[in-house]
Amino acid sequence: MSRFDELKEECCVANKRLPELGIVDLTFGNVSVVDRERGALAIKPSGVPYADLSPDDIVVLRIDVSPNSGYKMDLEAAKIEGDLRPSSDTPTHIRLYQAFTNIKAVVHTHSRNATAFAQAGLPIPCLGTTHADYFYGEVPVTRPISPEEIARHYEWETGNVIVETFQNLDPDQVGAALFHGHAPFVWGSSGEKAVEMAFALEIIAEMAMKTQLLRPEAAPLSQAQLDKHYLRKHGSSSYYGQK
Amino acid sequence: MSRFDELKEECCVANKRLPELGIVDLTFGNVSVVDRERGALAIKPSGVPYADLSPDDIVVLRIDVSPNSGYKMDLEAAKIEGDLRPSSDTPTHIRLYQAFTNIKAVVHTHSRNATAFAQAGLPIPCLGTTHADYFYGEVPVTRPISPEEIARHYEWETGNVIVETFQNLDPDQVGAALFHGHAPFVWGSSGEKAVEMAFALEIIAEMAMKTQLLRPEAAPLSQAQLDKHYLRKHGSSSYYGQK
Amino acid sequence: MSRFDELKEECCVANKRLPELGIVDLTFGNVSVVDRERGALAIKPSGVPYADLSPDDIVVLRIDVSPNSGYKMDLEAAKIEGDLRPSSDTPTHIRLYQAFTNIKAVVHTHSRNATAFAQAGLPIPCLGTTHADYFYGEVPVTRPISPEEIARHYEWETGNVIVETFQNLDPDQVGAALFHGHAPFVWGSSGEKAVEMAFALEIIAEMAMKTQLLRPEAAPLSQAQLDKHYLRKHGSSSYYGQK
Amino acid sequence: MSRFDELKEECCVANKRLPELGIVDLTFGNVSVVDRERGALAIKPSGVPYADLSPDDIVVLRIDVSPNSGYKMDLEAAKIEGDLRPSSDTPTHIRLYQAFTNIKAVVHTHSRNATAFAQAGLPIPCLGTTHADYFYGEVPVTRPISPEEIARHYEWETGNVIVETFQNLDPDQVGAALFHGHAPFVWGSSGEKAVEMAFALEIIAEMAMKTQLLRPEAAPLSQAQLDKHYLRKHGSSSYYGQK
Repeated sequence: MSRFDELKEECCVANKRLPELGIVDLTFGNVSVVDRERGALAIKPSGVPYADLSPDDIVVLRIDVSPNSGYKMDLEAAKIEGDLRPSSDTPTHIRLYQAFTNIKAVVHTHSRNATAFAQAGLPIPCLGTTHADYFYGEVPVTRPISPEEIARHYEWETGNVIVETFQNLDPDQVGAALFHGHAPFVWGSSGEKAVEMAFALEIIAEMAMKTQLLRPEAAPLSQAQLDKHYLRKHGSSSYYGQK
Repeated sequence: MSRFDELKEECCVANKRLPELGIVDLTFGNVSVVDRERGALAIKPSGVPYADLSPDDIVVLRIDVSPNSGYKMDLEAAKIEGDLRPSSDTPTHIRLYQAFTNIKAVVHTHSRNATAFAQAGLPIPCLGTTHADYFYGEVPVTRPISPEEIARHYEWETGNVIVETFQNLDPDQVGAALFHGHAPFVWGSSGEKAVEMAFALEIIAEMAMKTQLLRPEAAPLSQAQLDKHYLRKHGSSSYYGQK
Repeated sequence: MSRFDELKEECCVANKRLPELGIVDLTFGNVSVVDRERGALAIKPSGVPYADLSPDDIVVLRIDVSPNSGYKMDLEAAKIEGDLRPSSDTPTHIRLYQAFTNIKAVVHTHSRNATAFAQAGLPIPCLGTTHADYFYGEVPVTRPISPEEIARHYEWETGNVIVETFQNLDPDQVGAALFHGHAPFVWGSSGEKAVEMAFALEIIAEMAMKTQLLRPEAAPLSQAQLDKHYLRKHGSSSYYGQK
Repeated sequence: MSRFDELKEECCVANKRLPELGIVDLTFGNVSVVDRERGALAIKPSGVPYADLSPDDIVVLRIDVSPNSGYKMDLEAAKIEGDLRPSSDTPTHIRLYQAFTNIKAVVHTHSRNATAFAQAGLPIPCLGTTHADYFYGEVPVTRPISPEEIARHYEWETGNVIVETFQNLDPDQVGAALFHGHAPFVWGSSGEKAVEMAFALEIIAEMAMKTQLLRPEAAPLSQAQLDKHYLRKHGSSSYYGQK
């Protein structure tokens, strides 16, 4: 028994969903879930196959999620539970939790179609209602990370570059970024929801690519239809699903 | 026991086929089946995973299918059976049953290749016999829905825009429309047949895209061959399958 | 017990392999196997799902396979065994057995990538050794069938158009044709081998399409390498596989 | 019991992983594992389906792996264990073991996307971190093999052409080559690792193709980011995975 059993369970289940949904290959992905009140982060251990993962393998770290508190961490010292090394992407996750104060979970994958957009350095335009059901507008791509940032602290600066990309965007309405030359980072209100969004992102990336192959100049969805679809699934006036 | 057991069973089976055929992801699709004599519509509840669906979850609504009788409905009041909310696309389905008087089932999916054509705002040309076996000519795309229509009654007007697209088309010979910026709507003479057509639509969309990638100016099938294939499977002179 | 148990078994097994290999959808494909000595053809019944197929469902017809003996058949009268209607493509199969005197089995599918080439009216060029392992040179596409041929006897004339395409080709070295606007027909020395070739055809079609997307002007394999690969798997000097 | 039980087991397991990972079709691929100290090579028998393979089917050959010792072998005479013919690609494997003195396993597949690059005669540029995690820079394509080389000794010269391609490359940092007009050859420090790299190669080929479809002029990853990703997984300063 542990004070973090629920958190570890949620994190473990979310990680194991990634290969079931076909959005990770090998060990190219990870999910973390945060408990903001207790300042605890549950995250996948590095390089462990999803099939072998059990809740006891999940690493729990004490983290500071106060906005912009920065990164002066010793990950080993921060470990509350777990014998394994946390994901090498842990600092990126922490940076996102500090900046995006409502989110509860972060998902990183190298899902193939979304990664193609990230490698091309292109955002995913909102070309249809499938996109609008999940993301309120285009999914942005970051600028490339600089050699200086890579040398300073690669994974932490990866988070910084994403946060910079969202200067004029609402992370609660657009829950994903494509990291230039790398792959998507996605977030949401729970491990389950963030994984669903990472899956939706892969689907809309595939559809957007095919749309552009058929018609390079395909127009984005109208603002009125974007509003309609996003708002019928999200917020106080939503009427999709069961109450 | 209920007077609508058969209708609910047909609707439930048809909905559960969608993920088996790989033409829906998550909960992006729904099937309804109508009983015109009793004025009853069976439809998938909103946002419920297909795997969890049982006939008792299917919602049965009293509906008016007389041509162009319009939409002045209170969906809650119309409910005959079922505890769940019907699909948010219910008004679109009702509009199609009113206009296309021979159809018995409507299927809506976001199947990926057909949706790419819808997002591109392009019809699927009839490029081969696979297409001609199911659809007598190109599968049309609608015009975009206007902000005014979205504001008035989005899902009902979605049906209206499809009906407008079929002004000079026979819905019994071309059983599908691509909704511009959205996704396909398909219909047929039973839940099972409409789902088969939605699957065939996805296949011919994939083939048409690949054909155009190989040769952008690929010619449509000749009228003679379209007639031959469509008519050997459909109508009084058909000779495909068992009697 | 029947004199044709082995023939029906071979035909049934070969048909059931089609969906396992992912080269048919729904009921879009059929395999026949011939017994030339006894003048008997075993073929899939029309429109029956592969999963339901048992050897007893296979239709056995008495056919004349002497070269160019023509088609003056009454399929019902020709039936030796089986209660079901044979595939509507039966006359095409018979035409191929008459013209290509060494072949023992014919496979027809609408496999998606090969069908895209057929719809584009393009042959599959030999771009690599995977192709050369199975087909000695490009897989040809037929001319479009004419309205007159369609009106005369569609399925028989389909066979005639394929035979015409092979005027200067050896059907024992190139065991497939893409029917313009339709889909592939493949043949071989047994039901199992013809199905393997239909699968190889789909794979090389996918690879050829992707090669041309990467580099439209990609060069065909050299004659020397084509010879090497084809001949190390085929003929008296082959050294691939077990003796 | 045999002195080569472990070697045969490693080889068998690695071969059986190929279809599980979806990187071979039919029998288009093979893995070998070498024991340099004992001068023994374990390799897949030619043309045997992976599902049927057991460790006892693996062929063990006595080979000379001293650098550039050349090929004057009689494969039958070299056989230490096994009743079956070794893969027809055996001489290519031997050539690679002679030239690349640290490698322990060689994998050959016709995985579809990597093969498309090989057929196009194009290297796979390093467009993202997924690539950089496995290969330190672009994966090269060889020149076409000449008719003279094919006539001299096809499979051995295939190895020679790969070795020539690596004149200025480090095979321990870039563990794969695309053979022009043929398909990939991949190598690594164990059967398991080489198969993982063959799978990673197929994934990055798919992503690279899609990236170029979205943006033909997509830029390669910066040198700084390539260094970072390659070195966080490889070498003495790596910090990915568990210690």
